[in-house]
Amino acid sequence: MKEVMQEINKFREDRDWNQYHTPRNLATSIIIEAGELMENFQWQDEPKDMVNVKEEIADVLIYTMMLADDLDLDLETIIREKIAKNALKYPLEK
Amino acid sequence: MKEVMQEINKFREDRDWNQYHTPRNLATSIIIEAGELMENFQWQDEPKDMVNVKEEIADVLIYTMMLADDLDLDLETIIREKIAKNALKYPLEK
Amino acid sequence: MKEVMQEINKFREDRDWNQYHTPRNLATSIIIEAGELMENFQWQDEPKDMVNVKEEIADVLIYTMMLADDLDLDLETIIREKIAKNALKYPLEK
Amino acid sequence: MKEVMQEINKFREDRDWNQYHTPRNLATSIIIEAGELMENFQWQDEPKDMVNVKEEIADVLIYTMMLADDLDLDLETIIREKIAKNALKYPLEK
Repeated sequence: MKEVMQEINKFREDRDWNQYHTPRNLATSIIIEAGELMENFQWQDEPKDMVNVKEEIADVLIYTMMLADDLDLDLETIIREKIAKNALKYPLEK
Repeated sequence: MKEVMQEINKFREDRDWNQYHTPRNLATSIIIEAGELMENFQWQDEPKDMVNVKEEIADVLIYTMMLADDLDLDLETIIREKIAKNALKYPLEK
Repeated sequence: MKEVMQEINKFREDRDWNQYHTPRNLATSIIIEAGELMENFQWQDEPKDMVNVKEEIADVLIYTMMLADDLDLDLETIIREKIAKNALKYPLEK
Repeated sequence: MKEVMQEINKFREDRDWNQYHTPRNLATSIIIEAGELMENFQWQDEPKDMVNVKEEIADVLIYTMMLADDLDLDLETIIREKIAKNALKYPLEK
């Protein structure tokens, strides 16, 4: 995934897009893409266009990874920390 | 990241939550978490609570990774495919 | 506004769309339209296309009014109740 | 509804909140509230807490009405224009 992050960063640097990638703009982009993903579930439970589902998932990931990278957050670390927090909130029943 | 995905899957299997994780429910969860992330930018450009920002980013990632995994999508592959498509749409000027 | 609601209801009844208008599908439609409205603010504070802003606002309103109508909620009543609740939460300083 | 709009405007003016109500902040608020409404449909089709559904619908309406008012848009007009546009896009079959 670190290589993928480098490719994402190269893509935006090549186009000089970093100037638009404020945290707010990236968070806005995440929810816009999440909305486009939701369009596949607007009127039915099963999506009709799996190619679009795949692309919208990728878009959500790309913007989320850019935001995390810009904020110097390590993906694995923040996910593991959140799982640990969730495990405290929802402990396993014995 | 594959290990992290295994930990996420173990977490939900341990709690028997997979039964609720339909693609539609997961897509809904992604946009709900994206909305909680947006709360940090509701009235200002700079978020006040970076701990919350970090956690909401993690939540978006966790639900998106679960959805991709359930649909047998490889994260690196779909991101690279989307970057390639974007590169065609936005070619570099010479 | 009651006449407008009647026109909205006639529009969907004429097309036999009520069958798709479950509360969940309408709530999903509201956030999808809210996402399309947000696209106008993805990279800038000032929207470039006011015609689109106007149409997306209308779409949010139409779906929200349909949901409220299907749930037998009176718009004026629920808005006034919410304002009253907010006034308790944020009392005026003297 | 015009009276309700006046009450909404009085509420924010009394608290000097208009300064925060840029179009972008209001659009952001609409989608945040739409996300809170969606929470009622995260894991099930039928919402469990109808009081919350009612309040979130009111919140979506309040922010959308404030945005429309700030942009000098008349609610009935923009809804009717959108219905007319939709009628052209989805004509009735004979």
